[in-house]
Amino acid sequence: MAKQGILIVLSGPSGAGKGTICQELLRSYPELNYSISATTRPARVGEQNGVNYWFISRPEFQKMIENDQLLEWAEVYGNFYGTPCHHIAELLNSGKDVVLEIDTQGAAQIKKKFPQGVCIYIAPPSLDELAKRIHKRGTESLENIKTRLSSASGELTYVHNYDYVVVNDEVQSATNKIIAIIIAEKCQVVRNIATINNILSNAKKNF
Amino acid sequence: MAKQGILIVLSGPSGAGKGTICQELLRSYPELNYSISATTRPARVGEQNGVNYWFISRPEFQKMIENDQLLEWAEVYGNFYGTPCHHIAELLNSGKDVVLEIDTQGAAQIKKKFPQGVCIYIAPPSLDELAKRIHKRGTESLENIKTRLSSASGELTYVHNYDYVVVNDEVQSATNKIIAIIIAEKCQVVRNIATINNILSNAKKNF
Repeated sequence: MAKQGILIVLSGPSGAGKGTICQELLRSYPELNYSISATTRPARVGEQNGVNYWFISRPEFQKMIENDQLLEWAEVYGNFYGTPCHHIAELLNSGKDVVLEIDTQGAAQIKKKFPQGVCIYIAPPSLDELAKRIHKRGTESLENIKTRLSSASGELTYVHNYDYVVVNDEVQSATNKIIAIIIAEKCQVVRNIATINNILSNAKKNF
Repeated sequence: MAKQGILIVLSGPSGAGKGTICQELLRSYPELNYSISATTRPARVGEQNGVNYWFISRPEFQKMIENDQLLEWAEVYGNFYGTPCHHIAELLNSGKDVVLEIDTQGAAQIKKKFPQGVCIYIAPPSLDELAKRIHKRGTESLENIKTRLSSASGELTYVHNYDYVVVNDEVQSATNKIIAIIIAEKCQVVRNIATINNILSNAKKNF
């Protein structure tokens, strides 16, 4: 049996830089598999269906909930976001690592369903910096920005439910930390029982 | 108060390559502080007092045990080995990371006294490879080699008490994994409570 892959969950408040870090991570660590989320929110300029998200209708999303085809789902600022189950279990069972980029509500659901998942909280260096980044993105209305910032301050308290926190002060440095986390997790004794038993059974044969 | 440093415990059976990896780790990661162990075994060719070990007499070692000046100690193949407490706590409290290279008996004592210590088991790729390495070293009598190999097979079962296992198939690759483990440990939520509270209190001021 192949060694089980690792499920990496990148999460954190909107604007903390999850998307940019996730892209950089997939570029620097190409053996990682990206799990594409489904959403009912409209695609932003440059976003593609089946690349950034599966952009689906609300009735389609409701059907996936009813058929239990989502690992987690949430309604954020009036739009639905969710993680389709198909492929993830298959990839993990064949020893492949999977990365998910989701909001804090979704991460909490994943941690309950998959306690062996590695939950990483991407934190902005400060709330002031977060405000600047959302303004700069320029895709949100003023009212949306206000909603996002006040909820981000509440979302920061969720960090205590995560395994790791990576402050996104600089994308490359934050990405390197995430790569280190993946390498370290692969070295955890609990994830290496088969390798250890292999060396041990070899030892018993010889001595 | 400075962020607490991390105590990294490198351990594993004799001949697995702890010493070589530890040297490479200190070269690649110079901000790491090496805690020099005390021992009653004679210095090998090229080893220096106060660099590789504190080479002390048996009565001196006994005195350190009596005065509770050792974080851990053990008798291995008729020689005493131990970790002097002085400096370690001071370094950790000032936010500096410390690496220790010790045998499996010592690591178990450290894990009990310092559960926040990060215990890394350096495993040989196989027992055959371990036998080759001890022969190659050429510092041991044939009888000693036999003793080491049969006890190494028993020592391998201790790996389940460690946090991480790094198979030393290649020194640079094993060292890079240990560096990744240190970086990852520094990102653990439990080690970043102060940073998180800082962002949160800043958030409360603004929203």
